[in-house]
Amino acid sequence: MTLSPHFVLGDSDGPDFSICTLVRSADKYDRLLSSFARAGFTADNSEFLAADNRDHNRFDGYLWQKTLLTQARGRFVVFCHDDIELLDAGHAQLLAQLEALDRTQPDWLLAGVAGGRYRPDKHHRRFLRMHISDPWGDDRRMGEVPGRVETLDECFILMRRSRPVIGSYDLQGFHFYGPDLCLQAELLGGSAHVIDFHLRHHGGGTKDSSFRAALDCFVRKYAPIFPGRFLHCTTGVVHLVVPDPQEAG
Amino acid sequence: MTLSPHFVLGDSDGPDFSICTLVRSADKYDRLLSSFARAGFTADNSEFLAADNRDHNRFDGYLWQKTLLTQARGRFVVFCHDDIELLDAGHAQLLAQLEALDRTQPDWLLAGVAGGRYRPDKHHRRFLRMHISDPWGDDRRMGEVPGRVETLDECFILMRRSRPVIGSYDLQGFHFYGPDLCLQAELLGGSAHVIDFHLRHHGGGTKDSSFRAALDCFVRKYAPIFPGRFLHCTTGVVHLVVPDPQEAG
Repeated sequence: MTLSPHFVLGDSDGPDFSICTLVRSADKYDRLLSSFARAGFTADNSEFLAADNRDHNRFDGYLWQKTLLTQARGRFVVFCHDDIELLDAGHAQLLAQLEALDRTQPDWLLAGVAGGRYRPDKHHRRFLRMHISDPWGDDRRMGEVPGRVETLDECFILMRRSRPVIGSYDLQGFHFYGPDLCLQAELLGGSAHVIDFHLRHHGGGTKDSSFRAALDCFVRKYAPIFPGRFLHCTTGVVHLVVPDPQEAG
Repeated sequence: MTLSPHFVLGDSDGPDFSICTLVRSADKYDRLLSSFARAGFTADNSEFLAADNRDHNRFDGYLWQKTLLTQARGRFVVFCHDDIELLDAGHAQLLAQLEALDRTQPDWLLAGVAGGRYRPDKHHRRFLRMHISDPWGDDRRMGEVPGRVETLDECFILMRRSRPVIGSYDLQGFHFYGPDLCLQAELLGGSAHVIDFHLRHHGGGTKDSSFRAALDCFVRKYAPIFPGRFLHCTTGVVHLVVPDPQEAG
């Protein structure tokens, strides 16, 4: 028997975008889809993949992006929460922002709409970058945008399918998977950026009882790799030091 | 307009294996394909993807795996050189080895046929694991196999498509991309293993003039992440220390 190989010369074709969403609420997802349709995203230029958490949590934050990435065919892969809604900025503006990033930051691996400034000098408060509307205000702007960040908020993160970034396999849950992805991008030798793509995030993020445990796991993982670093996240500044075992009790 | 999303419940189906090969020589690749056909790999249970470097180097070591991974559809994705040839061990044995790994090392991310023992205590010589036939001998065995390693030889490396590992974006060339992949797997929180899948590697690896420059880049990248670590590679033991600028001249 003769096997017939497929010779690959470069990246494969596909639509402009794979819009991957972690879906808990069918109503919120419908609102998201309607807003994408209004903003110039079509079945021709984009595909829409949903990690189905409607009945129960099939996927956690670290798993859903991996699972959908293997099925995505778009040139750019967007990972977003179901509680975002596009506003005036649409398909054309997103492509324009990414083409600008290609030109000015060729080592970029991740782009988002809100995140923590890359290695700021001071740490007495969060130094963030964003252009977003959310429960804390409309049309909020912080820091210079676009600009390099060390963390991204999970509500909207995208990457090129030809230059993927994978999140950790030894962390679980629904917290810190945006910062984790950014640190993995940094370890891969690339960078993360906030771009100017104004959208509305209806959710405000929740710091439930699992937040503290997730923070501990995140710090234990990254303190040996980036000892002493302060990491500016939209949820707060994280100090990467291994806790004193006596204090940990 | 209504957009029609695709709801994803889990991993997608595909053949058992995507056999991805960096092809420089059509003759060697034909020999590889014939050996896979003899060893039970068929067009039904496997797909064969070739990164086409026949005319010129379209792909370097770090790029070809990324490009083929995005196009692979198999449950397991094998990355191999065109100068390997399967012997008695075939499709059934490879599946059996991987099922054993799933049972005993659920955090495994990479498997190969030759590599350096994970964090050995001594560093006066290379501590390797392998079961291989190559220009240095037939049926060579070193170390305990299967067993955990910190580096893998690039001649044969595989991963699960649902749990991918991406190589660095800030390293180039044809050296150290196996060790790089293993260190990225470790940073992702997983492990790499040598399994017992005896094959012949007709090539012996070349330490051409680019080797020294590639080693310098590799050490400069990883010394800040794993300061002082000795890394056992099939090509030699690498000490991860930033070179003294006075010595570097």
